[in-house]
Amino acid sequence: MEKSAGKTINELSIGDTVSHKKVITARDIEMFGEITGDYNPAHFDEEYASKTMFKKRISHGMLVGSLFSKLLGMNLPGPGSIYISQTLRFRRPVYFGDEIKAVVTIKEINTEKNRVILECIAYNQNNEKVVIGEAELMPPTKGGK
Amino acid sequence: MEKSAGKTINELSIGDTVSHKKVITARDIEMFGEITGDYNPAHFDEEYASKTMFKKRISHGMLVGSLFSKLLGMNLPGPGSIYISQTLRFRRPVYFGDEIKAVVTIKEINTEKNRVILECIAYNQNNEKVVIGEAELMPPTKGGK
Repeated sequence: MEKSAGKTINELSIGDTVSHKKVITARDIEMFGEITGDYNPAHFDEEYASKTMFKKRISHGMLVGSLFSKLLGMNLPGPGSIYISQTLRFRRPVYFGDEIKAVVTIKEINTEKNRVILECIAYNQNNEKVVIGEAELMPPTKGGK
Repeated sequence: MEKSAGKTINELSIGDTVSHKKVITARDIEMFGEITGDYNPAHFDEEYASKTMFKKRISHGMLVGSLFSKLLGMNLPGPGSIYISQTLRFRRPVYFGDEIKAVVTIKEINTEKNRVILECIAYNQNNEKVVIGEAELMPPTKGGK
C-alpha cells in the first residue's frame, strides 16, 4: 500500500460517509474571484447586494460545491480516484461567516464498472441544506493509483 | 437600467453565447487548495502524480467548472441571475499551463417560469472538450436585480 492511497471499490460500502466543516470568509471569496475571474457584484459589492433578494453579499455557489471535491479526492474514495461527474443544486444562499458542513455518502456501487455514486449535501449552521448533488467517481485500483 | 444589470429573459435568445479564456497556473491550484482544503496529491505532489494514469499534476476539475460560473454570473445572463443548478462532466485532465476556453450558450428559454438552460463546454488549447455540462438560472427581472 502506497502513501496517499484511496479506497478501492472492494473497500467501500453503501452508507459510508465523511464530512468537513468550513467557515466561508471574505478572503475565500476574494481568492475564488481571483482564480475564476468571477467578480459578480452579488459577491463583491455590499451596496449592490443590499438591493438584491438576498440582502447581503453571498458566496459563489461553486465555492461551496468545491468542498465536495475535497472530501471525494482526499477521503472517500480518496486519492487515486477519477472524478467522472458532479451535479449541484444551489438551494439557498451562503453568507460570509456561515459555517458549512459538507457531507458525502456512498449511495451506489457498481463493482463491474468500478464506479461509485455519492450523495453530496452541504448544510449551513442552521442545518439547512444549501447545496445538494451527486458525484460519480472511479475509485483507485491496486494501491490507490 | 442600473449598473451591473444582467439580461432579463426577454433580452435573451437561444444560441446567445459568451466565452472566456484562462491559463491554469500553479498559483491557481494553490489558492484553490487553500480555499477548499483539497490538497489531493494529484494536484500537489509531482512525484505522486508521475505514477498516476495522468503522469503529471492536474487541475482540480471544479476549478475548471467554476469558469462557467464567471460567465453566467457576469455575462450571460449576468448580474442579478439566480443560479439554480449546474452539472459537470470531467472528460479529460487539465494540466498546469493549459489554456482553457470556457463557453456557455443558451439552449432553452422558459419565459413562463423565468428559467434558462445553458450548455457549458470548456476546451483546452488543443480544442479538446475537458469539462462539459449544463446550467440552469433565473435571469434577473426589472433592472437586473
